[in-house]
Amino acid sequence: MQRLITTQTDFNSKLEALLAFDPTLGGDVEHAVNAITEQVRVRGDAALLEYTQRFDGISVTAVSELRLGRDELERAFLALSEPDRDALRTATQRIRTYHEHQKATSWRYTDEYGSILGQIVTPLDRVGIYVPGGKAAYPSSVLMNAIPAKVAGVEEIIMAVPTPRGEKNELVLAAAYIAGVDQVFTMGGAQAIAALAYGTQTIPAVDKITGPGNAYVAAAKRKVFGVVGIDMIAGPSEILILCDGTTDPDWIAMDLFSQAEHDEVAQAILIATSAEYLDRVSAAIDKLLPTMPRAEIISASLRNRGALICAADPDEACEIANRIAPEHLELSVEFPDQWLPKLRHAGAIFIGKYSSESLGDYCAGPNHVLPTSRTARFASPLGVYDFQKRTSLLDISHPGAQALGVVADRLATGEGLAAHAASARMRLDK
Amino acid sequence: MQRLITTQTDFNSKLEALLAFDPTLGGDVEHAVNAITEQVRVRGDAALLEYTQRFDGISVTAVSELRLGRDELERAFLALSEPDRDALRTATQRIRTYHEHQKATSWRYTDEYGSILGQIVTPLDRVGIYVPGGKAAYPSSVLMNAIPAKVAGVEEIIMAVPTPRGEKNELVLAAAYIAGVDQVFTMGGAQAIAALAYGTQTIPAVDKITGPGNAYVAAAKRKVFGVVGIDMIAGPSEILILCDGTTDPDWIAMDLFSQAEHDEVAQAILIATSAEYLDRVSAAIDKLLPTMPRAEIISASLRNRGALICAADPDEACEIANRIAPEHLELSVEFPDQWLPKLRHAGAIFIGKYSSESLGDYCAGPNHVLPTSRTARFASPLGVYDFQKRTSLLDISHPGAQALGVVADRLATGEGLAAHAASARMRLDK
Repeated sequence: MQRLITTQTDFNSKLEALLAFDPTLGGDVEHAVNAITEQVRVRGDAALLEYTQRFDGISVTAVSELRLGRDELERAFLALSEPDRDALRTATQRIRTYHEHQKATSWRYTDEYGSILGQIVTPLDRVGIYVPGGKAAYPSSVLMNAIPAKVAGVEEIIMAVPTPRGEKNELVLAAAYIAGVDQVFTMGGAQAIAALAYGTQTIPAVDKITGPGNAYVAAAKRKVFGVVGIDMIAGPSEILILCDGTTDPDWIAMDLFSQAEHDEVAQAILIATSAEYLDRVSAAIDKLLPTMPRAEIISASLRNRGALICAADPDEACEIANRIAPEHLELSVEFPDQWLPKLRHAGAIFIGKYSSESLGDYCAGPNHVLPTSRTARFASPLGVYDFQKRTSLLDISHPGAQALGVVADRLATGEGLAAHAASARMRLDK
Repeated sequence: MQRLITTQTDFNSKLEALLAFDPTLGGDVEHAVNAITEQVRVRGDAALLEYTQRFDGISVTAVSELRLGRDELERAFLALSEPDRDALRTATQRIRTYHEHQKATSWRYTDEYGSILGQIVTPLDRVGIYVPGGKAAYPSSVLMNAIPAKVAGVEEIIMAVPTPRGEKNELVLAAAYIAGVDQVFTMGGAQAIAALAYGTQTIPAVDKITGPGNAYVAAAKRKVFGVVGIDMIAGPSEILILCDGTTDPDWIAMDLFSQAEHDEVAQAILIATSAEYLDRVSAAIDKLLPTMPRAEIISASLRNRGALICAADPDEACEIANRIAPEHLELSVEFPDQWLPKLRHAGAIFIGKYSSESLGDYCAGPNHVLPTSRTARFASPLGVYDFQKRTSLLDISHPGAQALGVVADRLATGEGLAAHAASARMRLDK
């Protein structure tokens, strides 16, 4: 695992190289995805069936055969063990409680002319949630995408999940049940995104698509952006841990592992203010790594994209954290209040040694869909606000039209827009 | 101008055809833009200078020569006539007051285990605003993009505006001054978007880019989405007017014109519940059209993309409005409360006969950057929330880690993520 010290002369360029990840590259995928989405847009069900056969090995004669209703989702939920159901129930309840705090409400005020101005906040009508199939099929993702939509008041949630060679993930279906998903279509890839965006004879068009996916899904979401809303295009998952040396090194090693085990390009970085503590974490990594079922993935991730960074003091550590703008930031220190005000960019901050990222991933309450690849500089965790929209409201009074009409007339005239100016002038008293 | 009646058997297909606009098509532009953005990403200032010479006919030897500071913006403002300055001041003040209502604040709560959960809301660090050059250079756009960013607390606002053949728009620069823009670079097109997104030797990289532009600008924004945040990709501007027949037909005709005068693909649609009223508006259009300086553009827009629709009753009119999900919706009726609850999708609703769109475009207070092309189904007006971001906060207590650890352990194990499970388990008391 790479070791960096901020006093090295080439520290900045090494940090840059470590973080390099451009989400916009990948021309081959783009071309394939353009063809797939266009076929589904034009030919609907027929194209969707062809691609589902080709990519998932599923032969059905009608898209309706890919559909699972609430009854089938309920069966999956009831078939779980009681502890599994309890865990899903607890997570659902806590995620719902947290997200209730995010619900925006309509507002309005009356100005000095008696005009009313404000915004109406309403839920989206229908939302699509994409859930990857295979090894990365995570029931927790279903909860994290569907519950905020439900809290927002979305009336219909449609989930797409590929089932390669017919293999269904019962935990994912059970999570869909408890999270309130209305119907599931067992389809995946760019064809599923296109079907949800454009609608087909059988799949209803949705207003927004959220959820993670591979490069094809990401490219398809980018493609249909504008036809429907999308959440962020997710890059590899990342964690940055800031340590003052007071947390058990075993805990920190395992927290790094929990990020690295996702895949080989996941990124786990530790910044500490003492080289001696980095040595101890390093030793803990060596000790614990052989015990992990995914040791190979973890090892590749730590070797290729991981780093242990020694910073001079908390100020410098926080400054580097802001440059990294990590998806997950563990602030594993004894006096977090001395660090927190200096941190500006992160998807989520886990404060104190008991706040492991894994608690947030599943059940603490906050959303685990977080901005990756430095997008925390401008993007937010997925939330209820992603499933609400706003409509501006203007109810201009007669006196208001007199006062504003003069201003609008002048500004419109300055822009050379005579009809705008006339439209304002016509409302002036003669 | 096309006349539709909802009782026609082919009404639905005709309405579909009228609204058809796919923002994702346009492969040629995409290829050109990919080349331009890539050159600027890799070669920085040198590429930016070449493109600025080629597309805007401006020959300078350094990008710093394209820069205008606050002093130059102030000069433009002071050179305006007093009434022009007053109009900009009034508009700025009203837009600021309205947007202050949108400012989100941090929140947190303590759960039953004493854990603290919440979100910190912070402004973006640096934002880029694109302003088109030439005939579509609108000072009001500068206000509508820069003021919400300022209200959010953004520290630095950089504006890009092309000045083809060196032609500067003094009103645009004056608006930049009063809205608080920090510096302006006279550059445009895909090269300006790339320079703002990736940064060059001279242009600082921003965190988000907003503002309208032509097809090249739109494609470039789509391209860099993910490297920076962007606002929506804007399609042609649209207005939908709902009338009960009580508003002066001349006013309605002029309101339709004020949309149609933007360009030939702008869309102006009127729905009324009486054919006789549509006749009166039609006559007003014929009477007023010849008086308009932009009569040709208005005429083309109304002919190609406009429509007068006769609906059976308010219910049906509102249902069609929801399908159109217009950018601007004028509810020009005597009893708006009977209509308003039925309207679900619109960028902005202008209530009552005095609320002309033009008042909202300039100075009523709400933002004039609104979702177009049916995106009001999922998108919102530009606002302060576009320049704020959220960071989730988790401060899990020792008892919290015990309760949540068991749940996370089980769910992580179900997902096959052993390090996640172990990270939660390690925090359990022995």
